[in-house]
Amino acid sequence: MFAVVDPNRPDITRQILREVKSEAIMTNAYLLKRGQQESVPVELHDHLGFKATIATDSGAYQILQFGEVSIEPTEIVRYQEEINSDIAVILDVPTGFRANLQRARWTVDETIRRADESLAVMKRDDTLWVGPVQGGVHLAEVDRSAREMAKRDFDIYALGSPTELMETQHFETLVDMVVTAKKALPISKPLHLFGAGHPAIFPFFIALGCDLFDSAAYALYAKLDKYFTPEGTLQLGEVEELACECISCRSVTPDQLRALPAEEREVALAKHNLSICMTELRRIREAIRTGRLWELLEARARAHPALRRCFHRLGYHTGFVAQYNPAVKLHGIYYYGESSRLRPEIVQYSVRLLAAVEGQTRERLVLLPAGWRRPFHQDPGLESTVRELRDLDHVSVLFYSLPYGPVPLELDEAYPIPHTDIFDQKSSDDYEISATLVADYVRRTKPKTVLLLAGEARFGMTVRTHLSAITSIELIHVQTLTEVSMIAKEESD
Amino acid sequence: MFAVVDPNRPDITRQILREVKSEAIMTNAYLLKRGQQESVPVELHDHLGFKATIATDSGAYQILQFGEVSIEPTEIVRYQEEINSDIAVILDVPTGFRANLQRARWTVDETIRRADESLAVMKRDDTLWVGPVQGGVHLAEVDRSAREMAKRDFDIYALGSPTELMETQHFETLVDMVVTAKKALPISKPLHLFGAGHPAIFPFFIALGCDLFDSAAYALYAKLDKYFTPEGTLQLGEVEELACECISCRSVTPDQLRALPAEEREVALAKHNLSICMTELRRIREAIRTGRLWELLEARARAHPALRRCFHRLGYHTGFVAQYNPAVKLHGIYYYGESSRLRPEIVQYSVRLLAAVEGQTRERLVLLPAGWRRPFHQDPGLESTVRELRDLDHVSVLFYSLPYGPVPLELDEAYPIPHTDIFDQKSSDDYEISATLVADYVRRTKPKTVLLLAGEARFGMTVRTHLSAITSIELIHVQTLTEVSMIAKEESD
Repeated sequence: MFAVVDPNRPDITRQILREVKSEAIMTNAYLLKRGQQESVPVELHDHLGFKATIATDSGAYQILQFGEVSIEPTEIVRYQEEINSDIAVILDVPTGFRANLQRARWTVDETIRRADESLAVMKRDDTLWVGPVQGGVHLAEVDRSAREMAKRDFDIYALGSPTELMETQHFETLVDMVVTAKKALPISKPLHLFGAGHPAIFPFFIALGCDLFDSAAYALYAKLDKYFTPEGTLQLGEVEELACECISCRSVTPDQLRALPAEEREVALAKHNLSICMTELRRIREAIRTGRLWELLEARARAHPALRRCFHRLGYHTGFVAQYNPAVKLHGIYYYGESSRLRPEIVQYSVRLLAAVEGQTRERLVLLPAGWRRPFHQDPGLESTVRELRDLDHVSVLFYSLPYGPVPLELDEAYPIPHTDIFDQKSSDDYEISATLVADYVRRTKPKTVLLLAGEARFGMTVRTHLSAITSIELIHVQTLTEVSMIAKEESD
Repeated sequence: MFAVVDPNRPDITRQILREVKSEAIMTNAYLLKRGQQESVPVELHDHLGFKATIATDSGAYQILQFGEVSIEPTEIVRYQEEINSDIAVILDVPTGFRANLQRARWTVDETIRRADESLAVMKRDDTLWVGPVQGGVHLAEVDRSAREMAKRDFDIYALGSPTELMETQHFETLVDMVVTAKKALPISKPLHLFGAGHPAIFPFFIALGCDLFDSAAYALYAKLDKYFTPEGTLQLGEVEELACECISCRSVTPDQLRALPAEEREVALAKHNLSICMTELRRIREAIRTGRLWELLEARARAHPALRRCFHRLGYHTGFVAQYNPAVKLHGIYYYGESSRLRPEIVQYSVRLLAAVEGQTRERLVLLPAGWRRPFHQDPGLESTVRELRDLDHVSVLFYSLPYGPVPLELDEAYPIPHTDIFDQKSSDDYEISATLVADYVRRTKPKTVLLLAGEARFGMTVRTHLSAITSIELIHVQTLTEVSMIAKEESD
């Protein structure tokens, strides 16, 4: 995450960055140029007193705010090279949130035109150039923009102008935009989400494939006495105790913070806000390394219903996310009901299972209820029956389980089936969905006969209802395990 | 929370407490006495170099660990007074987790006997004495123990020996034990939960009325290179980045921590663990002040399925919790589906509503679907109809809504109805439960006629099914708002 700094207030920048570890900052080349009296360009790192990576924006956000800027696209490209920017952005035209389709189309076209114009005048090969994707809320335009930019050789891609969507908490729209762009862009290049600088949204958009963020919010909010937490924002005036150990908070009370002179308070809050962002990013990277990012999303999604809706929308796209999800992780996975149903591991399991069994028909399918014990076949009640059946050529054994639905005996020790820790409150919808998956499996594997041990429990009854609707099978209801063995072992006809 | 310190390692204690703000610590009077060579009792604060509150345990935990201790109950009472303990515990007999009913009964009886014996020999009136409640997992014994201890004038009560339940993650049992004790103890005196020293469980047990904790875990875990987070525990060896700004973590890498000599590392981790506990407690106090404790529970419950189960069990007791919940809060409330269904505000609403309308029959009840707009009567589609109906003497208007079920027009602006931010994924169970509440309301208010505008939506259909089962009313299905007005306005017969 780049901390966005005002190019014309280098002192404040120095004060803030002195104590908060930041490895990269972003500033605005357009505002810097406008604010300089002399005609000789400054050296950016000297000017800001920051030796590590500095990215520069081009003034595009100012177009969105003020309608236009008094600079030519090629001029700002040259200027960014002159001031020695490490990462630079062409002067694109942001679509914005309220643009109609016609306007969105024009911004996409114009951004592509400017991209070509800019690429033609670039001289340095040590600057990383960012190619912005536009299109606003018009997903077909986002897709077109991303495809066009992908054809051009940028080092980094960026999704333009989510700031307004962030401010109005339209996270669901932003989720769709990010996924649309990500799908069309080269997976090997980083994606920057412009202007999404609040820690509460980081884990969700990182899960969708955003690699870079910038935050001006940490400083803008500080001016308004707003205090970041990983879950949201507090008003300093309302806080009685600081649940934070950062450099600004560790040894002061909220009253002492409130009593500071305005500029000192602004700096203290900016440091705090920035530090919360950095800490949250470290937490997210740890979660990714240990395979626990979804777990973090589950928790963060309860910080606000708007984030819960964001998480829910993200669930629509786990089929895409799952493609890049490791097949096996360091840790087991947690299942909390509805919100976990679309987690990548579970979606992946269903997709891969159905692909794997395509056409693998056996004559008889024996359906047994999965118990709490993992692997399922070690359930003391089922163990001996399973042992009798497992070597019969014409029989396959399948457990019906929550949340995975159908689990063939051969897979009940494979990740993540026995590594799933389930909080299961047996909702009606859980039963319905898992039973549907079982029925899909039966349809796909086309057994002649299905022996179902449904019992009296609700899940078994739901599976029974779903299987009864399949006309191509003979469904035999069995009441006991002895009966299961007996019928299964009968010679096939 | 009292940080538990080893009375015979005062140097380590000083090192840890020098930099982590702690206003109260706990040590073990029995181990201190045993560790002293000289016969003259030390002054506790001087001995530990800690000027603020020091609580002492009596050796009861050592009974649980080793079966017995070589000290008399009255002897340790006198000793705690002599060493100038601020908060002291009588030598009770912990029941433990595996005790059968007979043993549990004996520990309760013996603890009561010792309480009387101890109360008789106490001399100082500036020591706060703690009365432990025993009974283990036998709730009737916990209840009996709490009732008996409540009759005796202790300053603080405590629930004994949850440590084993904590270690085995039997949080649900612990929830029931705490509620049982809390119900029988005087509400005006603090309740200490002995030996529950991990931050991940604090919010849940605080929500149930625990006021005080002690933690030896922060130090014991440190010895094992275990690293607290507010959500759980990490193994230092597995960590690549520290998502923490505390005094131990702020400027080091995990590699640097790992490279420290054993004792330095232990101190650094103990400081970190303690600081995580303190910060979490500050966060919880802030959540209580701002009326957001349930919101914190929602998030923390997703840190692990065992905590989700703990939270779920807590939901069984919200009828009790709700009694002490403010009727109106600073902030609105969030609703996330199943897990939020039992939050105190929602339970309180249903209970109070049914009590308030008892016997308030009107002849005709008009049931309208609640929309997204709050208050419901301002829905543009419904507004004019509601205006026509609201002054008719024989008609009352009721909205059916998620999650509250029935909302009379008179209440649709009252807290927390319009202040509820809902993430609603329309689960089957949500519909069923809310429709049941509507049917309960109808049964309670006994209207002659019910006009139901059900529409085609699933919720309306569910309400319709539930109302059809009530034989004492005439149920009229209306299709349009015009029809609603027409029929409702007909003169009553």
